[in-house]
Amino acid sequence: MSSFNPPARTLMGPGPADIHPRVLSALSRPIIGHLDPAFQRMMEELKTLLRNALQTGNDITYPVSAPGSAGMETCFANLMEPGDKVIICRNGVFGSRMQQNVERMGGTAIMVDDPWGRAIDPQKLRDALQQNPDAKLVAMVHAETSTGAVSDVKTLVALAHEHGCLTIVDAVTSLGGIELAVDDWGIDALYSGSQKCLSCVPGLSPVTFNQAALNRVAQRATPVQSWFLDLNLVLGYWQGDGGRSYHHTAPINALYALHESLTLLEEEGIQNAWARHQLHHQALRDGLEAMGLGFQVPAAERLPQLNAVFIPEGINDAEIRTELLNDYGLEIGAGLGEGAGKVWRIGLMGYSARRQNVLLCLSALESVLGRRGVINTGVALAAADEVYQGS
Amino acid sequence: MSSFNPPARTLMGPGPADIHPRVLSALSRPIIGHLDPAFQRMMEELKTLLRNALQTGNDITYPVSAPGSAGMETCFANLMEPGDKVIICRNGVFGSRMQQNVERMGGTAIMVDDPWGRAIDPQKLRDALQQNPDAKLVAMVHAETSTGAVSDVKTLVALAHEHGCLTIVDAVTSLGGIELAVDDWGIDALYSGSQKCLSCVPGLSPVTFNQAALNRVAQRATPVQSWFLDLNLVLGYWQGDGGRSYHHTAPINALYALHESLTLLEEEGIQNAWARHQLHHQALRDGLEAMGLGFQVPAAERLPQLNAVFIPEGINDAEIRTELLNDYGLEIGAGLGEGAGKVWRIGLMGYSARRQNVLLCLSALESVLGRRGVINTGVALAAADEVYQGS
Repeated sequence: MSSFNPPARTLMGPGPADIHPRVLSALSRPIIGHLDPAFQRMMEELKTLLRNALQTGNDITYPVSAPGSAGMETCFANLMEPGDKVIICRNGVFGSRMQQNVERMGGTAIMVDDPWGRAIDPQKLRDALQQNPDAKLVAMVHAETSTGAVSDVKTLVALAHEHGCLTIVDAVTSLGGIELAVDDWGIDALYSGSQKCLSCVPGLSPVTFNQAALNRVAQRATPVQSWFLDLNLVLGYWQGDGGRSYHHTAPINALYALHESLTLLEEEGIQNAWARHQLHHQALRDGLEAMGLGFQVPAAERLPQLNAVFIPEGINDAEIRTELLNDYGLEIGAGLGEGAGKVWRIGLMGYSARRQNVLLCLSALESVLGRRGVINTGVALAAADEVYQGS
Repeated sequence: MSSFNPPARTLMGPGPADIHPRVLSALSRPIIGHLDPAFQRMMEELKTLLRNALQTGNDITYPVSAPGSAGMETCFANLMEPGDKVIICRNGVFGSRMQQNVERMGGTAIMVDDPWGRAIDPQKLRDALQQNPDAKLVAMVHAETSTGAVSDVKTLVALAHEHGCLTIVDAVTSLGGIELAVDDWGIDALYSGSQKCLSCVPGLSPVTFNQAALNRVAQRATPVQSWFLDLNLVLGYWQGDGGRSYHHTAPINALYALHESLTLLEEEGIQNAWARHQLHHQALRDGLEAMGLGFQVPAAERLPQLNAVFIPEGINDAEIRTELLNDYGLEIGAGLGEGAGKVWRIGLMGYSARRQNVLLCLSALESVLGRRGVINTGVALAAADEVYQGS
C-alpha cells in the first residue's frame, strides 16, 4: 500500500462540491486539543459565523460532529418521543429518510406526498394538519437534493405553527446557496450539511434550535435514545459557560475547515453568494436549454445549485458520466430514487458555482452528447456568455 | 472574523495526539466524489489496512463516519434489541457510557465494577455470567482512557463465549499502541477511534464485526433505532459488490487521512509501533518516577500510551496545566471522572510517542514542579536517557 493521490476532478454533482483552497489549507493546520482555550475561542467564532449564515440569533447553533444524516437524526431524536405523530412533506428521497427516522424512533409518520421534482404544496399540508390535530411536528426539505426543487418553507412553517406544530427543516443543500432565514421564517429546528454550498469537507452537520424547540426538549418524558446525539449532553461541550465538559472528541481539523468556509462566506456576503449561485445557474441553464436539454423542475420551483435535466432518449446514463469523469475530470450526478437513469443532477454549489465550472460542464457535455447527435451544437457557450455579459 | 491559526502545541493528553505531517498533507488533498471509482479503490485499500491493523480477516471492517462514541453506538444499536440483558465491565468512564447506550436503547445493563485504575477482574465477570444466564452481550474497554489501565480482553472474551454471550470491545485507545488481535482473541464486535494511537484526525471510528455478530444482526426482530448507524444500510455503501449505493456522504478528506495514517503504521510494522509506545513509556515512566511522581495504575496493568500520575500534594491542577500550555505549548490531560483533580493523564499516542515529546514533557514538568519544590530535580532526564541508551 502507498499514499493515496486523488485524481484531479471538478465536482458538479449533488455534493460534495469543490473545496476552496483556503478551506483545504485551514483543514491541514496542526491539531490542538479540543479543550484548548484557543480552540474554544474558535468554537465561539464558529457559532457566530453559523448564526450569521443561518440568519438566526438562536443561541443553540453548532455543527454536529457527523454528516447531515446525523443532523437529521439529532433533530428527530431530541424533538420527538415514542408515540408522537409527525407530518412529513415528501417530494423526493429525503422525505423518505425522515419517515425512517420517525418510525425507527417509535413515532407515527403521516406522509404528505407531492410529485418528485415539484415544490411541496401548502394546501396538502393544510389538509393534513386539519386531519391530524394531534400531530406534534411537521418536517420538510427546503431544497430537495434528489430533484432540485425548492419549497416555500416560510409558508409551510407558518401553517404548522397555526396548528400548534413545531417544525424541522432540512437545509442541507440550501444553506449558502439560496435565501434561508431561520428567525424570519420561524423555523424551530434545522439541520444542514458542510459539503454543499458551504464548500467545506463532508462530515459536519450544522444545526440550530429556537426556544420553542428547546422547551420541547426540556419537557421530554423519555430520554433521548441516542447518547451521542443527546442535545443536553452535547451542549455541555459546545455551550459550557465557564468551562466545557468532555462529551466526545470534536473533529478538530474539520471544524477549522468549517470556520474558514464560513469566513469566506462572510467575506463574500451571504446575499452575494446567493446572487452568484443564481447567476451561474442562469448561464448553465441557458446553455443546457440551447442544447435542447430539458429541466425536470418547473422554473419557479427550481434550485440554482442543483440542476436536474432529462437524459436525452437513447443515451446511456452511466456511459456518459464515465466519459465525463475519465476524459474531462468532470463529475456530474446520477439521478436518485425515481430519477435514476432518467435525469442527471448538475450541481453548482459553493466553490463549484464558478464561471470556469459552467464553461467546462457545457463544453464537455456538448462534446460527448454532440458526437452522438442528440443535442444542438455550437450554441451553448454563446447562450451562457450572453448571461455573463448581461450581468 | 478572520482565518483561525492555531497556536503551536505538543499534544500529550488522552487524545487527540499530534498528527504526522504526512497525514495532514493527505487530509488537504483536493476532494473527489464519494462514488468516484478512484475513491472506491481507496476505500478497499483502507479496509485492508484496517484489517491488518486490527489483525482480523473480518470482511465487515470499516470506519464509521463519526467519533468513537458513534462507533460505540453502532455496536450496541446493531447487536442489541430492546429487552436484552448486557453485562458491562466497568473500570472507568467509558463503562458508564456503555451503560447509557444500553439503557437508552431499552436494554438492561448489568454492571460489573472494578476500581478505577485497575484491570477488569475476570472472576467478577465469571460470577456475573453465572448469575445472569440470560445475558446476551458482554461489553468491555480494552484500554481505559480515563485511567490508563489495560484489561485482558482475550480472557474476558473467552469467558463470555463460554456462557454464550457475544462481545463488544472498546479499542479506542488501544489500536496501534498495544497488542490487539481481533481474530485470535475472538472479539465479536469492536470499535476504535482515529485520533489516538493512529495519529489521525478525530472524527472517525473504525469498527469490525465477525460472522457471529453479523448473524445476530441478521436475526433481529426489531429495526435498528438509528437510520444513520444501521449496519445493513451503511454496508450498501462500504461493501457494495459491483456498485455502491449512496447512504450518506462519506467524510472524504478524513478518510484520505486515515488511509495515510494506516499506511504509515504498515510501513513501520504494527509490532514495531507497539514496541515504540513501550519504549517511550518506559523512558517517561523512569523520568517521572525519578522526580517522585507516582502512577495510578499498578505496573502490570498499565498502558504505555496513557500515563496517569498523581498530582503532588498542594499543587493546583489547572494552574500547572495552564502554565504547561502557555509557556511550553504542551498539553497534558486532566483527570476524568473519579480522577478529576487527582491525576494528570500523560499521553504517548501515535506520533506523540516520540523521544522529543518525552524530553519536552519531563523537562517542562521538572521546571514547573521543581520551582514549587514538590519533586526531585536534576534526575529525570538521566533516568529517561538510560532507557534510551539501553534500547
